[in-house]
Amino acid sequence: MTDAAPPISRYPVPALEAMPEDIRARILKVQEKSGFIPNVFLMLAYRPDEFRAFMAYHDALMDKEGGLSKAEREMIVVAVSAANQCQYCVVAHGAILRIRARNPLIADQVTANYRKADITPRQRAMLDFALKVTRQAEAVDEADSAALRGHGFGEDEIWDIAAIAAFFGMSNRLANFTSLRPNDEFYGMGRS
Amino acid sequence: MTDAAPPISRYPVPALEAMPEDIRARILKVQEKSGFIPNVFLMLAYRPDEFRAFMAYHDALMDKEGGLSKAEREMIVVAVSAANQCQYCVVAHGAILRIRARNPLIADQVTANYRKADITPRQRAMLDFALKVTRQAEAVDEADSAALRGHGFGEDEIWDIAAIAAFFGMSNRLANFTSLRPNDEFYGMGRS
Amino acid sequence: MTDAAPPISRYPVPALEAMPEDIRARILKVQEKSGFIPNVFLMLAYRPDEFRAFMAYHDALMDKEGGLSKAEREMIVVAVSAANQCQYCVVAHGAILRIRARNPLIADQVTANYRKADITPRQRAMLDFALKVTRQAEAVDEADSAALRGHGFGEDEIWDIAAIAAFFGMSNRLANFTSLRPNDEFYGMGRS
Amino acid sequence: MTDAAPPISRYPVPALEAMPEDIRARILKVQEKSGFIPNVFLMLAYRPDEFRAFMAYHDALMDKEGGLSKAEREMIVVAVSAANQCQYCVVAHGAILRIRARNPLIADQVTANYRKADITPRQRAMLDFALKVTRQAEAVDEADSAALRGHGFGEDEIWDIAAIAAFFGMSNRLANFTSLRPNDEFYGMGRS
Amino acid sequence: MTDAAPPISRYPVPALEAMPEDIRARILKVQEKSGFIPNVFLMLAYRPDEFRAFMAYHDALMDKEGGLSKAEREMIVVAVSAANQCQYCVVAHGAILRIRARNPLIADQVTANYRKADITPRQRAMLDFALKVTRQAEAVDEADSAALRGHGFGEDEIWDIAAIAAFFGMSNRLANFTSLRPNDEFYGMGRS
Amino acid sequence: MTDAAPPISRYPVPALEAMPEDIRARILKVQEKSGFIPNVFLMLAYRPDEFRAFMAYHDALMDKEGGLSKAEREMIVVAVSAANQCQYCVVAHGAILRIRARNPLIADQVTANYRKADITPRQRAMLDFALKVTRQAEAVDEADSAALRGHGFGEDEIWDIAAIAAFFGMSNRLANFTSLRPNDEFYGMGRS
Repeated sequence: MTDAAPPISRYPVPALEAMPEDIRARILKVQEKSGFIPNVFLMLAYRPDEFRAFMAYHDALMDKEGGLSKAEREMIVVAVSAANQCQYCVVAHGAILRIRARNPLIADQVTANYRKADITPRQRAMLDFALKVTRQAEAVDEADSAALRGHGFGEDEIWDIAAIAAFFGMSNRLANFTSLRPNDEFYGMGRS
Repeated sequence: MTDAAPPISRYPVPALEAMPEDIRARILKVQEKSGFIPNVFLMLAYRPDEFRAFMAYHDALMDKEGGLSKAEREMIVVAVSAANQCQYCVVAHGAILRIRARNPLIADQVTANYRKADITPRQRAMLDFALKVTRQAEAVDEADSAALRGHGFGEDEIWDIAAIAAFFGMSNRLANFTSLRPNDEFYGMGRS
Repeated sequence: MTDAAPPISRYPVPALEAMPEDIRARILKVQEKSGFIPNVFLMLAYRPDEFRAFMAYHDALMDKEGGLSKAEREMIVVAVSAANQCQYCVVAHGAILRIRARNPLIADQVTANYRKADITPRQRAMLDFALKVTRQAEAVDEADSAALRGHGFGEDEIWDIAAIAAFFGMSNRLANFTSLRPNDEFYGMGRS
Repeated sequence: MTDAAPPISRYPVPALEAMPEDIRARILKVQEKSGFIPNVFLMLAYRPDEFRAFMAYHDALMDKEGGLSKAEREMIVVAVSAANQCQYCVVAHGAILRIRARNPLIADQVTANYRKADITPRQRAMLDFALKVTRQAEAVDEADSAALRGHGFGEDEIWDIAAIAAFFGMSNRLANFTSLRPNDEFYGMGRS
Repeated sequence: MTDAAPPISRYPVPALEAMPEDIRARILKVQEKSGFIPNVFLMLAYRPDEFRAFMAYHDALMDKEGGLSKAEREMIVVAVSAANQCQYCVVAHGAILRIRARNPLIADQVTANYRKADITPRQRAMLDFALKVTRQAEAVDEADSAALRGHGFGEDEIWDIAAIAAFFGMSNRLANFTSLRPNDEFYGMGRS
Repeated sequence: MTDAAPPISRYPVPALEAMPEDIRARILKVQEKSGFIPNVFLMLAYRPDEFRAFMAYHDALMDKEGGLSKAEREMIVVAVSAANQCQYCVVAHGAILRIRARNPLIADQVTANYRKADITPRQRAMLDFALKVTRQAEAVDEADSAALRGHGFGEDEIWDIAAIAAFFGMSNRLANFTSLRPNDEFYGMGRS
């Protein structure tokens, strides 16, 4: 095992004081809420315009009212991130999933094999679709939407599933490229 | 072949008049510049917040000053979109690539097999890396960056390649999911 | 972008005068008809016996009377060649497809993602089968033929689809191996 | 989420009293040591002869003196089981890995993407090889062993890595086939 | 072609006299029965404890009374070993399959493409399932068992199919890793 | 196992008397030489023009003087056909390979895993390249030819390897599509 404090990202992390005001404000807010700064904020702060667009996109998909539950959204993120082998997203969103679902087991189950997780048939269909968007989007068609409607999903929820899978597919690639390191705090959150 | 005017997207397209002011303004601006409205704007207008974040992200990566040339950025988009079998992105960005590169052949070459395209060894290395981010981001590491630096790319350009590949990976999935149709205008642009 | 006139093939191209009479005659005939000599003729002329067998096979499959339309045969060629990433075949047969189908958009659509192309359900089934022959011929079985019969294809047409897919699978491999370069003329043909 | 106590295995689990004496003894011993009975013992008890052979094989590979450390053996198990999407093995051996390595983070890191885990270059080489045995054993050759020797591994340790990867490849398939459920106790073990 | 007598295994093969008594006895017994010592015994004798566990597991699955016929068990071994490209297992178990099935053609048919072999629909379903366990065990579910029950397989036979596929998946990896060489005797056995 | 004499091909086989004279003559000649009619001749006779082109192509590649030995050509056919899971080609050309190489073991070795076969490093390089043409022709480039030249292959031999791999890739697809059955005679040929 290595000794030195491992870097957060392959790229430089700007000091809080050196960040544009809006970015610093957003980061201080999440720090206040979580008790620590999730490393994705620090990695992206190296690129302020991308930081802003990324966060706006994230919020549009993950903080939207109605439709999929917060836990279901995180379930999609964890399943997609496991398929893409994104360590940061699996660990960080695994923590959020445990909290949102009030279930200490669910994240590790979805990470290892979502087909064996303690989820409903409706959630299983949701994740099957998210994985198809992830791995074979070129073959997604109306039959996929029909199957989801058969489980009670509306067209807007279907868009949400696809868009969350697509957005985190991007996020997974960025995190793998920058070797983004999950904060130690995430590993134990929501486990009891 | 089918007869009816084919739909732009599986989802409803809002009327220009019904769109939020900022979105309508952006669309009218692109229409003025291009002579038509690229369908991706209309598809995304169904979701105003996602429209705004998508366009902000797009502009941060594609309209950035310095570093990769505009043609090189489009080359990445076309190579990645071909790998992801995204019809809209291949056709629309193929048109833009022809124009940016002032080369009527380049887009079809990159689409079919970028390894055989009329590109420099440096551009070949750029596209090899963009494809690795697309297909195997979990294995991207420092050796990939070293190889790119050997071709004269700086760390910021390397980030740009990875980020463009990741962003259009998202875009490709959304376009395939919504069955986004390329405007007829794109096919012939920049061919003479 | 490179400056020197790029080579047609990794292998030497014999002079017209040095070719066997029958091969020169065939080449002059296609030149008269098309206005230029498609490079595949020059590449293969390096191997006269293979040239003859290749052209005889090609004609038996592509110039056969009855059954699939000429446009449908080219559609198969383009879809298979795109899957095999064969630049020559995608560009050259894309041109022929546009002309045969009198449709300037169809080739680029089929190249990028045939599932989103302006084709009939019958043609979609035809291409799905051609792709299965291309990628998973070991699993082709009677159920595939039954599905095609359900779309009105006869057994002889089904053979044609499979044989065209198989023949161009060979052609794609030869063209990729020799780095066969598409003639510039193909790119713009049939686009207006 | 589902309500009923979920089954341990798709197959019947014999009562402790109904098991052959040697199997019951082994199970009581592990229960005494761990405080609970890992479900793999109960699943396999349905087939006493396979139970005995499995445990003998397991002990020969995992409890062997010398060579790879206990933590390294578990690291191999977790990396291979993640690649094979085996929920039981990832969760159960993830717990054992945390304990053996006295590291609460290591199991989740290896599960998500072992290339980004806090491991030494020697351990990275070990896991690269274990994954090659898992996914492409037909191409393993002397060059793989030479690379491992370059990291200080002896021929017997190289056998151990391969044999552990192969054995847990079997174990992963059995667990996925029987839908073997990880005990709830494993999830939190070794996390603080 | 090479001249020297090729090695049986990348690892040393102990002399019969130097082996533990039980292992020597087992080997002498198989030699008496077959007329030669199958090389897998010699390769594994390098590791006595693994030898014992391997043989115990093998016998529990392959010599079990009732259920699948001996020929069917070998059919599974050959199909799985061909998928895993294990030369030793394909050649050695191909020989045994020919003998058990009293069919000189069956082993080569199953090796090349089991879907085209002279087998019953029930056996085809059995091999389809064995291959799914081999290649995609993470997606095996109750529907697979239901399909097999529809062909008359009982739950215990279904376990046997899965366990044989899993065990020989391990065996294939060990044989590929050690470059285990098939005895010359196997190639011609059962061919007339 | 099935009882009825199994069909040679999914398509009708014309009677010898009903075949065009040149095709009947070719078939009678091979029958005289081999003692039986290989089924591929009967299957293809259903399509006389394709029969002629196929045989002309086959002869141009396989009966050519100089360069690769006859045994090496068949080795390529067997390795490629095994990768494509073509039962007819593996069994029929396996027989021819045994005879050409005067080696009763070589065909089964190459079929199962050519990397473990009794071949020279030069032949190993030849088969690695044939497999790359088979599976990833889009990435074949000058470096592949350079590697082969390093093993003493000339440019014309390299063309032969690629062309044989490409031609039998076509042949494999046709045989799998028509369910072409190997003659029983092939299985035992050249085994003693």
